Amino acid sequence: MKALEERILRDGKVLPGNILNVNTFLNHQIDSCFMMEMGEEIARLFEEDKPTKILTIEASGIAIGFAAAAVMKLPLIFAKKNKTSNVDSDVYCSVVHSYTHNKDYTAVISKEILSKEDRVLIVDDFLANGCALRGLIQIVEQAGAAVAGCATAIEKGYQGGGDALRREGVKVESLAIVESMEDGKVTFRM
Amino acid sequence: MKALEERILRDGKVLPGNILNVNTFLNHQIDSCFMMEMGEEIARLFEEDKPTKILTIEASGIAIGFAAAAVMKLPLIFAKKNKTSNVDSDVYCSVVHSYTHNKDYTAVISKEILSKEDRVLIVDDFLANGCALRGLIQIVEQAGAAVAGCATAIEKGYQGGGDALRREGVKVESLAIVESMEDGKVTFRM
Repeated sequence: MKALEERILRDGKVLPGNILNVNTFLNHQIDSCFMMEMGEEIARLFEEDKPTKILTIEASGIAIGFAAAAVMKLPLIFAKKNKTSNVDSDVYCSVVHSYTHNKDYTAVISKEILSKEDRVLIVDDFLANGCALRGLIQIVEQAGAAVAGCATAIEKGYQGGGDALRREGVKVESLAIVESMEDGKVTFRM
Repeated sequence: MKALEERILRDGKVLPGNILNVNTFLNHQIDSCFMMEMGEEIARLFEEDKPTKILTIEASGIAIGFAAAAVMKLPLIFAKKNKTSNVDSDVYCSVVHSYTHNKDYTAVISKEILSKEDRVLIVDDFLANGCALRGLIQIVEQAGAAVAGCATAIEKGYQGGGDALRREGVKVESLAIVESMEDGKVTFRM
């Protein structure tokens, strides 16, 4: 999505530790009009896959997940992050390792809101090593539901998580794929 | 908002500990079409107050905040919850006591995304004792910005947080005000 690449170049900041800060428009302050455009692009990319629900994870996935859900007129589910693995029998859950914070958390959703009839489009703001998406895929599989695909705003292509999922046959679409951030300069996959 | 009251009566569950569970449509699974209708109602209620930004707090405030922001074509800011009060000088922050979890957290936003020229509409999913809204009001005041008002989906009227803010002159609008949940029966303020 050309408009997202241009916005990253204009307003994104490359910080030490290979962090791309997009706090002014994507995940702290959110440009709601631009986010709705991203929702429309996700809807276009996954229309043919006929999802019945959108699944994301708190907190920064909620806005982009909701934008896609609003355009596609689908329910949005957001998984909650638990610090403990002490969860009850009424939930689906999976352990996710966060490289950003170097700790594990448990992604949890209530069983009552996902069923085996569902086709689930998983949406998140960032895709790096793919751990969060894999955790959400596990939850969809626990429910016996189908994965319609994965959509993310910004993929760090050089971390390989997206390509690994694609090789396994998962449809993964990212609106911008960053190929490198060397010397503070962002370059995108052609 | 009559439609929200009807939805609470149909799909809400009163749980032990005076908890109103609306997980199937408002804050775990989100009915995106209905949430956009709530965003339209918030926009109607606060149009005359001319907000320039919407402010909410992660995680369950993000969807309703985004819906209002998308309708009003305004940026949405969501405050982050820190467990520590160890925050740097580039942020505005306030300590909030959560009665639900019986602990304190620090609500934090980056200084770069809020300025004294802003008129801020604060949006959240629930209003009970008003601690979260007061924390967000403090943050707006730290920035030297103006509070345009507070909008919430569901107010627990009997906990008094909303009325206390109204007595102090803050414009507070809730789309449904629960007056009691005795014996598992929800009744609304007339």
